[in-house]
Amino acid sequence: MSAPRRVRLTPEARRAQLIKLGVEMLATRTLDELSVELIAQAAGISRGLLFHYFASKQEFHLEVARAAAGEMIRRTEPDLALPPVEALRKALDAFVAYVEDNPDSYKSLVRGAASGDVEMRAIFDATRATMAQRIIVVLDQLGFTLSERASLAVHGWVAYVEECVVRWIAGSGAEGETLGREAVLDMLTKSLPAVALAASDGEIGTLVEILTATEQPTT
Amino acid sequence: MSAPRRVRLTPEARRAQLIKLGVEMLATRTLDELSVELIAQAAGISRGLLFHYFASKQEFHLEVARAAAGEMIRRTEPDLALPPVEALRKALDAFVAYVEDNPDSYKSLVRGAASGDVEMRAIFDATRATMAQRIIVVLDQLGFTLSERASLAVHGWVAYVEECVVRWIAGSGAEGETLGREAVLDMLTKSLPAVALAASDGEIGTLVEILTATEQPTT
Repeated sequence: MSAPRRVRLTPEARRAQLIKLGVEMLATRTLDELSVELIAQAAGISRGLLFHYFASKQEFHLEVARAAAGEMIRRTEPDLALPPVEALRKALDAFVAYVEDNPDSYKSLVRGAASGDVEMRAIFDATRATMAQRIIVVLDQLGFTLSERASLAVHGWVAYVEECVVRWIAGSGAEGETLGREAVLDMLTKSLPAVALAASDGEIGTLVEILTATEQPTT
Repeated sequence: MSAPRRVRLTPEARRAQLIKLGVEMLATRTLDELSVELIAQAAGISRGLLFHYFASKQEFHLEVARAAAGEMIRRTEPDLALPPVEALRKALDAFVAYVEDNPDSYKSLVRGAASGDVEMRAIFDATRATMAQRIIVVLDQLGFTLSERASLAVHGWVAYVEECVVRWIAGSGAEGETLGREAVLDMLTKSLPAVALAASDGEIGTLVEILTATEQPTT
């Protein structure tokens, strides 16, 4: 018996350890690439033992996706003690940092959502709903009455931010891309009141005020 | 020999017929649900004969996806003879109509893009790029200088429109949803100059003008 790395853990602790490992490995590979063998090896246990803790590969993948989504949500929580625009900007900053640190996790979530898997889709929908709901709180603080249209706009805006950030980080499409991080944060911050206003009637004055207030000398 | 439905077609015509059938059936089912058996049956040919025209199910699916994307692009082409804002609104109207008529085709494209399949991804990327490129032409006519940021914003805006339209058509999330089609078209039309401005510096006056010009009495 010369396996010193094998540590005895409670079932809960072992499950948590395996999920944590999965989330870490997901940062730079998609769920499809996250094999059970790889995880078992990293944890120093056998493939068979892993299935003692998870009923199936599918269950393991769901738990990893759920934990990854939870981590993203925690890291991007807006600080409501700050002025609204600043809270929004900091939350966006945290989101950009999250995607930078985990270039593949987010892709996995999106893929899961697009797949036929109902439970995966539920995780993604819940994540998006949480993000949209937070934004609705910020908009409320900015003084926007949230009509049905404005609420639709907020959901669309979450997709807007995702697309811009993923695209900016991938640096896709542009040769000699030089867009700085602050410039991106600036455009994302301003785009929220912009689309909210585009979904409202006759509040152009309010938008101008907000855009002017968030205007910063960026290039 | 009592099979009167079996019509002799040239190989090109037969391929085109099968792809056309696939596109039609894709409107209300996803690619995953589009079985080769179903198509062969609808065309009145054997499953084996279908594989005489397509090397694999994968090749058939790719051709169907490509044709569906092509149809969407054709249907949503902006009429550049119109004033820019009107051209934009009509193109958005056509996009909404396309998603209404083909509730599942679009989902298939998005799923294909999210899947690991490189060729599927290429079809989706080309479709998005075409849509973004058209918008860049409209923005150019509206007098916006397209900075790197504005170009990023346009790509994000395409995702914004997709999310809003798919969500609106699904009627998801809202009980008693009453948002009318004109109200949605109005918000989508205004959101383009709004995000473009949010991605620019110091052109607030221009935005106000454009928003005011597109303002319509909607609820």
